[in-house]
Amino acid sequence: MSKYDQYEGFQVESPETWTEFHKNKFDVKPFGDHDVEIKIECCGVCSSDIHTINGGWGEQKFPLAVGHEIVGKALRVGPKVTLVKEGERVGLGAQCWSCLECRQCKNDNETYCTQQVDTYGQAWPDTGIVTQGGYSSHVRAHEHWVFPIPDAIPSHLAAPMLCAGITSYSPLVRNGAGPGKKVGIVGLGGLGHFGVLFAKALGAETWVISRSHSKEADARKMGADGYLASQDPDWNKEHAMTFDLIISTANNFGEGFDLGAYLALLDVHGKWVSVGMPEEATLNIRPQDLNPNGCLIGSSHLGSRKEMLDMYKLAAEKGIKSWVETVPISAENLSATMKRLRKNDVRYRFTMTDYDRAFGA
Amino acid sequence: MSKYDQYEGFQVESPETWTEFHKNKFDVKPFGDHDVEIKIECCGVCSSDIHTINGGWGEQKFPLAVGHEIVGKALRVGPKVTLVKEGERVGLGAQCWSCLECRQCKNDNETYCTQQVDTYGQAWPDTGIVTQGGYSSHVRAHEHWVFPIPDAIPSHLAAPMLCAGITSYSPLVRNGAGPGKKVGIVGLGGLGHFGVLFAKALGAETWVISRSHSKEADARKMGADGYLASQDPDWNKEHAMTFDLIISTANNFGEGFDLGAYLALLDVHGKWVSVGMPEEATLNIRPQDLNPNGCLIGSSHLGSRKEMLDMYKLAAEKGIKSWVETVPISAENLSATMKRLRKNDVRYRFTMTDYDRAFGA
Repeated sequence: MSKYDQYEGFQVESPETWTEFHKNKFDVKPFGDHDVEIKIECCGVCSSDIHTINGGWGEQKFPLAVGHEIVGKALRVGPKVTLVKEGERVGLGAQCWSCLECRQCKNDNETYCTQQVDTYGQAWPDTGIVTQGGYSSHVRAHEHWVFPIPDAIPSHLAAPMLCAGITSYSPLVRNGAGPGKKVGIVGLGGLGHFGVLFAKALGAETWVISRSHSKEADARKMGADGYLASQDPDWNKEHAMTFDLIISTANNFGEGFDLGAYLALLDVHGKWVSVGMPEEATLNIRPQDLNPNGCLIGSSHLGSRKEMLDMYKLAAEKGIKSWVETVPISAENLSATMKRLRKNDVRYRFTMTDYDRAFGA
Repeated sequence: MSKYDQYEGFQVESPETWTEFHKNKFDVKPFGDHDVEIKIECCGVCSSDIHTINGGWGEQKFPLAVGHEIVGKALRVGPKVTLVKEGERVGLGAQCWSCLECRQCKNDNETYCTQQVDTYGQAWPDTGIVTQGGYSSHVRAHEHWVFPIPDAIPSHLAAPMLCAGITSYSPLVRNGAGPGKKVGIVGLGGLGHFGVLFAKALGAETWVISRSHSKEADARKMGADGYLASQDPDWNKEHAMTFDLIISTANNFGEGFDLGAYLALLDVHGKWVSVGMPEEATLNIRPQDLNPNGCLIGSSHLGSRKEMLDMYKLAAEKGIKSWVETVPISAENLSATMKRLRKNDVRYRFTMTDYDRAFGA
């Protein structure tokens, strides 16, 4: 009998068995004054889940329930909570706590707080209890990281915005995507499809850059103004030095990936912002690839609470609809879904649903 | 007998003999309506000269007179020239022509014009005549690239500002170096010493980051507020995530250069701007080096006419003095000077002088 409260969730036991899920009980941190307890309704499936449970991002703490695109109901709020009301429908993304006192936290850069805690797989400093993600019955998080969701957005479509959505949205707004700007989205997967939806909603001229033309029809349906296939000869020539911003969701910079050809698309001081997080891979950057346009290469990590709320507001107002395939949560279905995601066999995001059947109402 | 006008200069004949200079006559482009003819008084010595004549930057057109930090007198101006007066003391940097019609040219980004012509080693499209640099009696350039120099700045100190100076100044002002900002200058050579002088003059908190402490006293004399030696253990720890901008003048990113340790110094979305142009070398960037602070890596190429004039104004007003060793121009002295520069045996810039003795008054 644990001295801590317990929830129930689908956990993976080791990297070697990362496609096997087991329904276990686990300890959760003591409920804090600023905490919100969420009864989970659904959870989006993110590539981070795979990179974590298969060990691709390094050693992890097992057993572990992943999942960090969580939508549910605020079952209980701590006595000092002001940002969330009991009973509200809310979301929780990839992080669940930060110090809120450092320069980063005070500057809408709380996702870069050096003390921040991930929604799954990280030990709380006080108790050592490891955070467990959204393939579970409930989850606890600090109110700052819990976001009320507008009524206009169905839960299964709101869920993937909590990681994939904000990851694409934040670098767009931080780098001025809007009317008069030409934006490229490299890779049309879960992240990329949000890149297109949000870049268009923000008013930018939006281009998809993919390897082949296989996703062109989808890209157009999402609203893309143009499409470039990097396997076409001279694919980048006509557009040299015309893009203000490229958001790269690619997570394979290996052989055959000619970064210089992409950078040549950027206008002077244009930015290449990478939001894909490959398991390995190094960007081999030749100074002469940066010099002709003085371009910049960077990355971006999630987005602030403020941006999260703005993103949902924009999505509600503009009727932005994530392209989502729903899957009822179970050990078997999680296994099958992870395998499909590993093969990129999804257009464009999974959301695990039917939590009441798995965990009770 | 050439059908073109001719000047005289110290040329190198081949990469194999890059330390041998020969005083030759050479053809020059026909004098255009917007051209300025400069009688050269002195010329700064830039590492680009070496990278060009030794073949490090690839195949070049020989015989070639290099030198692109040119100060002299506007001997003659074309009938349409409005920016320069006959008799004025003027400077010419690393570029001598651009189209002035493209988006880059119209946007104070003329150094990124895809048609721009370098001051030495490039064939004019119309005649095929190869541009020859400042180790010569005279030079011709379009008025846009010819800059009046304030009386307060002696010629031999003004010269190195035309390439090294503007290369350091432009990324500082373009990236907001000023009061309240913390700026790092990596490498204290010709470029780096200007980085310190200008960052200070612009009001930024200025730190030098060098391998050892050997240049610390000089850095302090130049006005640096702080100094970090990357060979010290944990040298970057105390300053993690505190720099807004780092200008890297390093031109060796080979073994032992831990880029991640430098990037860790940057605040969220801080920028690493590289202005060193190594002969080879690739920046091996791991995505996880960019992710903790969402930093950006870029480069910068010279600076606009507007920035050049602003830089001289600032230098005149603040009494900024380049640290310069003067050397009377001759074939022997050019050879010795290039050899010393190759060994970084200079604190911090050479200017070739006494042109009247070499070429006549």
